[in-house]
Amino acid sequence: MASLDREDPNYFGAGPAMLPTSVLQQAALDLINYDNLGLGVGEISHRSAPAIEVVDETKQLFKKLLEIPDTHEVFFLQGGGTTGFSSIPPNLVASFVKKHGKPGKCAYAITGSWSKKSYEEAVRLGFYCEVLTDSKKAYGKFGDIEPFEQWKKPTPGETAYVYYCDNETVNGVEFPFIPEYEGIEVVADLSSNILSRKMDISKFGLIMAGAQKNVGLAGITIYIIKKALLEQATDDELKALGVPLAPIATHYPTVVKNNSAYNTIPIFTVHILKLVLQNLIAKGGLEAQEQLNKRKASKLYAALDQYPKLYKQPVSKGVRSDMNVVFTIEGEGLEAEFLKLAKEKKLDGLKGHRSVGGMRASLYNAVTEHSVDLLVDFVNEFGKAHSN
Amino acid sequence: MASLDREDPNYFGAGPAMLPTSVLQQAALDLINYDNLGLGVGEISHRSAPAIEVVDETKQLFKKLLEIPDTHEVFFLQGGGTTGFSSIPPNLVASFVKKHGKPGKCAYAITGSWSKKSYEEAVRLGFYCEVLTDSKKAYGKFGDIEPFEQWKKPTPGETAYVYYCDNETVNGVEFPFIPEYEGIEVVADLSSNILSRKMDISKFGLIMAGAQKNVGLAGITIYIIKKALLEQATDDELKALGVPLAPIATHYPTVVKNNSAYNTIPIFTVHILKLVLQNLIAKGGLEAQEQLNKRKASKLYAALDQYPKLYKQPVSKGVRSDMNVVFTIEGEGLEAEFLKLAKEKKLDGLKGHRSVGGMRASLYNAVTEHSVDLLVDFVNEFGKAHSN
Repeated sequence: MASLDREDPNYFGAGPAMLPTSVLQQAALDLINYDNLGLGVGEISHRSAPAIEVVDETKQLFKKLLEIPDTHEVFFLQGGGTTGFSSIPPNLVASFVKKHGKPGKCAYAITGSWSKKSYEEAVRLGFYCEVLTDSKKAYGKFGDIEPFEQWKKPTPGETAYVYYCDNETVNGVEFPFIPEYEGIEVVADLSSNILSRKMDISKFGLIMAGAQKNVGLAGITIYIIKKALLEQATDDELKALGVPLAPIATHYPTVVKNNSAYNTIPIFTVHILKLVLQNLIAKGGLEAQEQLNKRKASKLYAALDQYPKLYKQPVSKGVRSDMNVVFTIEGEGLEAEFLKLAKEKKLDGLKGHRSVGGMRASLYNAVTEHSVDLLVDFVNEFGKAHSN
Repeated sequence: MASLDREDPNYFGAGPAMLPTSVLQQAALDLINYDNLGLGVGEISHRSAPAIEVVDETKQLFKKLLEIPDTHEVFFLQGGGTTGFSSIPPNLVASFVKKHGKPGKCAYAITGSWSKKSYEEAVRLGFYCEVLTDSKKAYGKFGDIEPFEQWKKPTPGETAYVYYCDNETVNGVEFPFIPEYEGIEVVADLSSNILSRKMDISKFGLIMAGAQKNVGLAGITIYIIKKALLEQATDDELKALGVPLAPIATHYPTVVKNNSAYNTIPIFTVHILKLVLQNLIAKGGLEAQEQLNKRKASKLYAALDQYPKLYKQPVSKGVRSDMNVVFTIEGEGLEAEFLKLAKEKKLDGLKGHRSVGGMRASLYNAVTEHSVDLLVDFVNEFGKAHSN
């Protein structure tokens, strides 16, 4: 039988992303025999005590790492960000109806392809939506964020939530601020930067984050919700107002009431979350991880900045992502050569998203500083060879 | 480091269920280094060639094992049966509108707790539903199925589909027939008996089956759809008719068009499906599995039938499930004693569903005949000890 060893990869893929080797090794063992039960963690009933313990412990670890206040609750859903795009409007509007007796508007900041998709899905489902800012309209491309004071102002008492994507994975744009308006709930997609740095969770009505970048395998999404928002109008009230309902498996109050196991929760996938969070704590927690991530990103941006004629960066300096560093390479055939030479040096996953092209180096939590140093060396080497 | 070995469990849990040890061992290795890529199968991009190959190969294996005709397509969704309950009415009604220019009724056979849940969700979402048969109303309990000729007849041209649950996991009731009506699509939930026996797929408009019983881990659901049903009315047409839309990640035409990767597909979970199907083929395919399953179930029912005063079976003989054998034990404290003694013999997972109590022995594909023989011996032994 082959071994559970591997060389640590230098992998910069945008997600599903690499996970710490030690986490995968433990998960591999637990897949076969978990906690001496004689059964793997994926085979036990989702209603058994060991499964409930996995869910509870994972929730506790999130609460600890993110310092989630008692006003907020953590839960898990299958389905990733796209399911979030669909489930957020019906749930948040149902909360708004409960409080205000009428449906509220869904306000979106469009700063890249993910927030755009989320907005489009809310419109498609028939919710009353408005756009507060659209980077493409403002700048002709995604790569910047309009100054907050220039955004269209949503109306408190009429707006169910303001939605934004804190880190746009495809476009490499990360918010340097939280778009807070007095009296309006903030909803954030943190799929590609959750647990990359500290955040003040108390400012959010709802956070949604797919696991497959910083915290686990594809197949599970983390939600952090202000408990007050679990008070929703009834299905009948919503139907009478013409508000579409969330499918029951994504009806947040039902999911929370059933400790994320209203339907069968994929326990193996949650178990991996748990192992990743334990590993993060063992390595110094969020503070250490944030410092490491800042260092990784600074090094790579600094290298790219040294060769501005070769490496073109479409993202403005103030909104550059620490997670996804995007750039193009000027010169016929040079992008292909860059990828080919990188591969020879075992630097993988650098190709940009098919919709925008170019390069993208994702520097998620599990990407080591050593991997980034190797990439930086290569960026410099390639830069020298192709500058004159 | 601990090993990947384990003693084969004697586990009769209803799901998530046990998987073949050899499958889990291969999956454990692939979690760390898949196909010598230096990365685990859960870490590669869902749009990479090796990931697409996993999806395509898994689809092909389903087509081969179930002899799926070219008129039908296979796709995967996250979310399990409950997500299926919510996604079936909007999709199938959208197909009906495309063909008939008006919404159709959703007709349900209620033969146990799962079909009941599915019906209730369709009603909740606002679809126009009717009940063709309700075992609880007919017999005072779930445990039988009304003769097909006694069902209420749905009207062709007005009924979008007839829905039934082929095997009711909680109640131990399995259909001995397919409720076919000329000109009406049949929709079946095969979550707990897919690949347990041969089936004529051509008879179905749609099949939905959560993986976590016979074919894999929780977190993925298999759909087999008649291709003609992928023709749907547009969102605008549906909105104008007041038909609720499916969330985009469960909009079947979108999912099929994107080869099940419109959103991030959990590749590790699909990979396990693939390994389970390969293992099934290596062991003789569906024919061999069906014979094995029939033998396993017959042996256990025969043992229980020998002690009718002790072991009470709530399910009528003609509709007994080969997958989930349910029974209660007469006599103060005897159920607890049965479970205790079973556990001492390493026979696990026998407790019935919390909603019905009693015992339930699930005999899914991965449960070996040896395990069943041990259980049968114990049932006999316990039977002798408590009969007089």
